Amino acid sequence: MTISDNLNNVINSNNSYAKDFTKGDLIIFPSKKFSILTCMDARLDPAQFAGLAEGDAHVIRNAGGRATDDAIRSLVISHKLLGTVEWFVIHHTNCGMELFTDEIIGDLLEKDLETSQFDGTNWISDNKNISNKKGSNSGKYIKWFAFKGLEKSVIDDVLKIKNHDLVPDHIKVYGFIYDVTSGKLISVE
Amino acid sequence: MTISDNLNNVINSNNSYAKDFTKGDLIIFPSKKFSILTCMDARLDPAQFAGLAEGDAHVIRNAGGRATDDAIRSLVISHKLLGTVEWFVIHHTNCGMELFTDEIIGDLLEKDLETSQFDGTNWISDNKNISNKKGSNSGKYIKWFAFKGLEKSVIDDVLKIKNHDLVPDHIKVYGFIYDVTSGKLISVE
Repeated sequence: MTISDNLNNVINSNNSYAKDFTKGDLIIFPSKKFSILTCMDARLDPAQFAGLAEGDAHVIRNAGGRATDDAIRSLVISHKLLGTVEWFVIHHTNCGMELFTDEIIGDLLEKDLETSQFDGTNWISDNKNISNKKGSNSGKYIKWFAFKGLEKSVIDDVLKIKNHDLVPDHIKVYGFIYDVTSGKLISVE
Repeated sequence: MTISDNLNNVINSNNSYAKDFTKGDLIIFPSKKFSILTCMDARLDPAQFAGLAEGDAHVIRNAGGRATDDAIRSLVISHKLLGTVEWFVIHHTNCGMELFTDEIIGDLLEKDLETSQFDGTNWISDNKNISNKKGSNSGKYIKWFAFKGLEKSVIDDVLKIKNHDLVPDHIKVYGFIYDVTSGKLISVE
């Protein structure tokens, strides 16, 4: 296998990190007893923007930072087994999840599996397959959690979590929007 | 509402971060075209251990770093709409997901929703409810993705992703274990 630049860079960066590593005694339980649920977006570094050190807090991330069943699975484990009692739900400006609908991605995946192009308004898929796998209609049966309305998506997800039958009502759930142009967290009440 | 120490600290840390923020021009597409799927564990800081700056790569995290349907939802969006072509699946030593079974957490949640105690072998739930919500048997119908066997869990998840019908076969999927005592990434072939 040819080692890609990314693989090489990750391994080299990790060697530097491990060389000066001093956090080997941390325990499994988050010392600050909180969790963050946020988006996978590359521009977000929750440890930096929220001031976390290794050992402090759980960080759960998915496309959109949505309160999916899987995010709630993780949050319930975080509280029930590992003791967190405060949860931050953080969506962000310019989120990719606002740029499409579940119908659009379903259609795009049916055409082909290659990366579509975005012209600022529409997604365009005129790719030749470079995979043995062809486009599939199975994307039409997946809930993608695309959304319109950033503040609403935060409020919806905070309420969904609070109302879940496995989440005790003393857990504090805070909603925030992270502004990718300023680095600021904005509280959503 | 009393502002908790955690809420206060996150807001203060964010104010410092935003004050010197210089990354406001980053675009939505990850510049290094890769994604990391890893665990929510508080001891893991993927940006640090893999050498990421803001804008480089998607980071997806859940309990265990497992290839759940939701993680695959995020990965498919990451490739199909946002152009990533290499994915790292990174589980870690001393993972909480090896300390219980789906049956155990289902039973614990049925008793009560408060945090259980771990005595090194067993989870003990003798809590009084301090919530209006009582224990629920709905946890018995959730797949929690607990696992035994760290290397196997990585291999299983890499294969599950590679074999998914919405993942083209040219995507490179790398498996790793992160050692929480040394900070090192260990390749799983």
